[in-house]
Amino acid sequence: MKKKEVIVLKFGGSSVANPEKIKYVAERVKSFADMGYKPVVVVSAPGDTTDDLIKEAAGISANPHVREMDMLLATGEQKTIALLAMALWDMGQKVVSFTGHQLEIITDGNFSNARIKSVSSAKLVEALKKGFVAVVAGFQGISLKGEITTLGRGGSDLTAIAIASVLNARCKIFTDVEGIFTANPKVYARAKKIDIISYDEMLEMASAGAGVMQARAVELAKNRNVSFEVACTFSRKKGTIICGEDKLLEKLVVRSVTEDRDQAKINVSGVPDRPGIAADIFEALSDKNICVDMIIQSSAKSSPESGTPVNDISFTVKRSELNRARKILGAVRKKMRLRDILVKENIAKVSIVGSGMKTHSGVAARLFRVLAKNKINIEMISTSEIKISCVIDEKNTAKAVKVIAKEFKL
Amino acid sequence: MKKKEVIVLKFGGSSVANPEKIKYVAERVKSFADMGYKPVVVVSAPGDTTDDLIKEAAGISANPHVREMDMLLATGEQKTIALLAMALWDMGQKVVSFTGHQLEIITDGNFSNARIKSVSSAKLVEALKKGFVAVVAGFQGISLKGEITTLGRGGSDLTAIAIASVLNARCKIFTDVEGIFTANPKVYARAKKIDIISYDEMLEMASAGAGVMQARAVELAKNRNVSFEVACTFSRKKGTIICGEDKLLEKLVVRSVTEDRDQAKINVSGVPDRPGIAADIFEALSDKNICVDMIIQSSAKSSPESGTPVNDISFTVKRSELNRARKILGAVRKKMRLRDILVKENIAKVSIVGSGMKTHSGVAARLFRVLAKNKINIEMISTSEIKISCVIDEKNTAKAVKVIAKEFKL
Repeated sequence: MKKKEVIVLKFGGSSVANPEKIKYVAERVKSFADMGYKPVVVVSAPGDTTDDLIKEAAGISANPHVREMDMLLATGEQKTIALLAMALWDMGQKVVSFTGHQLEIITDGNFSNARIKSVSSAKLVEALKKGFVAVVAGFQGISLKGEITTLGRGGSDLTAIAIASVLNARCKIFTDVEGIFTANPKVYARAKKIDIISYDEMLEMASAGAGVMQARAVELAKNRNVSFEVACTFSRKKGTIICGEDKLLEKLVVRSVTEDRDQAKINVSGVPDRPGIAADIFEALSDKNICVDMIIQSSAKSSPESGTPVNDISFTVKRSELNRARKILGAVRKKMRLRDILVKENIAKVSIVGSGMKTHSGVAARLFRVLAKNKINIEMISTSEIKISCVIDEKNTAKAVKVIAKEFKL
Repeated sequence: MKKKEVIVLKFGGSSVANPEKIKYVAERVKSFADMGYKPVVVVSAPGDTTDDLIKEAAGISANPHVREMDMLLATGEQKTIALLAMALWDMGQKVVSFTGHQLEIITDGNFSNARIKSVSSAKLVEALKKGFVAVVAGFQGISLKGEITTLGRGGSDLTAIAIASVLNARCKIFTDVEGIFTANPKVYARAKKIDIISYDEMLEMASAGAGVMQARAVELAKNRNVSFEVACTFSRKKGTIICGEDKLLEKLVVRSVTEDRDQAKINVSGVPDRPGIAADIFEALSDKNICVDMIIQSSAKSSPESGTPVNDISFTVKRSELNRARKILGAVRKKMRLRDILVKENIAKVSIVGSGMKTHSGVAARLFRVLAKNKINIEMISTSEIKISCVIDEKNTAKAVKVIAKEFKL
């Protein structure tokens, strides 16, 4: 460990949910300071505070104004920084807290889902130089017009990565799990913690359902090349380091298997085979903020009625958004005279991720064979350079994860 | 009413304690906008929020760091401005909220008890020009160094008066009483609401125990010559206008009678008659932030023991601070070899206030006579140009208020 090294420590809402936890976090921060680090601490709103604030807003308006919602939500992290700083002072640690406004975390002004444009390091550097720990409100920033703006889901992770980037510092994201695992330990008891993983693998895992971090924060880390560690707040064990692929000693063909049960399949049949039709369908969905995950289009065949070529399009959406998707497609169907819209709810997506896949052939075949051998039918397949996803019947999820984990020795 | 006149409306914590009340306040604000006014609304933290935040801090630290306490408390008003703005948007009213930081309410940086140095009007003027209602977080500002600072008790009133001053605007302070009364209506049922009163009279009343407004805000109004109205949030009746003495058509000899039961008397006897002794005693108290109200020193007499001249000093403190005062004086007594420290708890102060007193003689005599006629003993007397205060036995308080109110036809 280098003495006087700046380190960014991020603690999520569940780590600061009550006074005891805040004091515990303060102790952890103090221990880093005592080791000679210069900590910058990024925190989220305590526990259920954000949900409580959303409820309060709902008591005032069915459709709260988005600017004022950000104004309201930003109070959550401001509470945490004040309380955590008090706890640190009580331990004899010099500390200073900063709101996003005070630190000049400049955003693009997009309420409720802002992007960080820049972070001014001057105040942090000054505080650290004087021996203060800096405690920063995550999730919030200020636009160039002076508007308080929040960063959306996973926003505090974004704040931590952005600060680590401008300070050129190490970054530790503390959470309630011990790191990233080769498989969900609740499903596969022999899953192992991964020591080191690349940004891309982590991104693919996030999109494949591994819920530890939002993809946005990992993307930012990748773009700024900020390696960081995901570790557990309430344990002293090493976590998982996420870094550039060049830093991986060993590129595993398959790093992990993930499952995602929040999936539903929609099949639209009789789609006229002419340009722009698919765009119309998916624009209608994205206009209402429904994310479509896998999309498969079968090749054109003749319509039994008209004889003109038609396609079948299948895709998956989040199960929680299925009803909304169905309504939207009902309207599209009428307008475009599509034949049928079929829905299957009880599906799941299992994926394997590994950056070594790029240079290894036969991984997909091996995956399909192990599923077949175990009588697990594959309904849809999608692949990226470093990921293969299969949609299967939900009831086979745990079994699939286990046999895949064994097959690839995860 | 002039069209498009700017008006500052201030609502206290009890007026925005829950969603229903916030919606009600929004309606009141909207009605001013609908009448053609351009409202700037200043609000406090909702109901018990400030107390709840103080409790939360106490759960972290027995002696919370003062900077971080201000950071914490400032979230209270930020919540109100967001919720009130949401309610106004819901009624179709264009509105924009501002924290003290955003509005550049610049303070002297004195945490927990800051003074406002300046308020930038640019953002308010811009918002009002565009037809927006401005909602401003009271009680908070930002120092030139960018530190969030709160203004102490009555801070939101200060914010409202300061804004009215820079905008050269009318100002209405909404509260839970209908205005300023000639006597406490709970004690004297026939008390009348005062239509108009001078800053000085209001100041004397505040210091004499009338709890409607803190003296600081009235002082600021006097210094900047901002006349304002105190009225009831939940009534449409006219309140009381507080303004410069030059605007009073009629200077009443006695405007009101007030009572203050939060009083205790301390008598220090055998104080050596030499310079600096009284200063030592009262410095010891003020060092610990104990406010001394009335002070009476008897002329020097000889000490029975030493024969050297000694004084008796009597003074009043808040009853709630009596125990702390006693401890401090115990230490002083030892050091200075004072004879006795006697305490009387059950006293009250009744005062009459009126700017006409300056030019009328005989008011004091009339007051003392009416008390004597009713067998109410006066223990201490203090006077200012426009106020006479008497300390009496607490059990006589209500009786004194009634007979004084009748005598002076209040």
